[in-house]
Amino acid sequence: MLVVGVDPGTINMGVGAVLSDDDLLTLAYSEVLSPPKSAPLSDRLGWLHERMSRALEDLRPSVVAIEQPFVARNVKAALAVGQAQAVAMIAAARLGIPVAGYSPSEVKKAVTDYGGSSKEQVQQMVSVLLGMDEILEPPDRADALAVAICHINRSRALEIAEL
Amino acid sequence: MLVVGVDPGTINMGVGAVLSDDDLLTLAYSEVLSPPKSAPLSDRLGWLHERMSRALEDLRPSVVAIEQPFVARNVKAALAVGQAQAVAMIAAARLGIPVAGYSPSEVKKAVTDYGGSSKEQVQQMVSVLLGMDEILEPPDRADALAVAICHINRSRALEIAEL
Repeated sequence: MLVVGVDPGTINMGVGAVLSDDDLLTLAYSEVLSPPKSAPLSDRLGWLHERMSRALEDLRPSVVAIEQPFVARNVKAALAVGQAQAVAMIAAARLGIPVAGYSPSEVKKAVTDYGGSSKEQVQQMVSVLLGMDEILEPPDRADALAVAICHINRSRALEIAEL
Repeated sequence: MLVVGVDPGTINMGVGAVLSDDDLLTLAYSEVLSPPKSAPLSDRLGWLHERMSRALEDLRPSVVAIEQPFVARNVKAALAVGQAQAVAMIAAARLGIPVAGYSPSEVKKAVTDYGGSSKEQVQQMVSVLLGMDEILEPPDRADALAVAICHINRSRALEIAEL
């Protein structure tokens, strides 16, 4: 199963794909999409949507997993996350790819076994789980891959429960 | 100048177009886009994006004006507004149409002269300003047209200031 994970942001949007084959997880794709900062918001969202569409067309994942926060610093921050989520969801919908949402604590718990872990701990554990030697930088890359791993873990747990 | 106004929502998205010719305002288009309620969120956003793109392609407005709240009931509501805004912004960006944002109180003030007016007052004044006999139902239709009128008023004020 190939899963694309998305860490939604209108300034930096983490996108990562993880391939799961039995118990083996492999890094399939990792990128941070950063639209031109000086452009108006609508152009930045259009830019992100184009890149996201292209990535999903190339990867054709089974699922797109997106981080879905339940708290936000303020309304402006929540609007921005909603806008970035929509970029990925519209791109996925056009290709008929289902979308799943996971809270930040679910994602952290999936990779570090603790829902309150730090960004550094997530970065380290994502590298370990994907069998990589180096730490993923910037953290948005690791976050996106962590969302994908979270979805894979959930699907496995469901499969086991259904046995 | 033809301006499309948008009242962003993922359940009901108001879309309206107002043509301004000197002091005369005319209703050019009015609709509420309501995606299938039982569909997953990503499919609803995809559906809204398709309809919005088609409307903008047909209308080819000079500007898309979108309501931009600064307060929200909760994070979930703010995420939904952000998602709906992105639907319109991505569609506008693809066609190279600039986007402007106005707060709900700016919009209310533009049509009723009072930033705290009720939904009913907005509905009534939009009908009066557009020279219509009936009241626009549902309110999302009037709200979208009010956003367009707000942008037209602002542009006029700027023109006068620049004289």
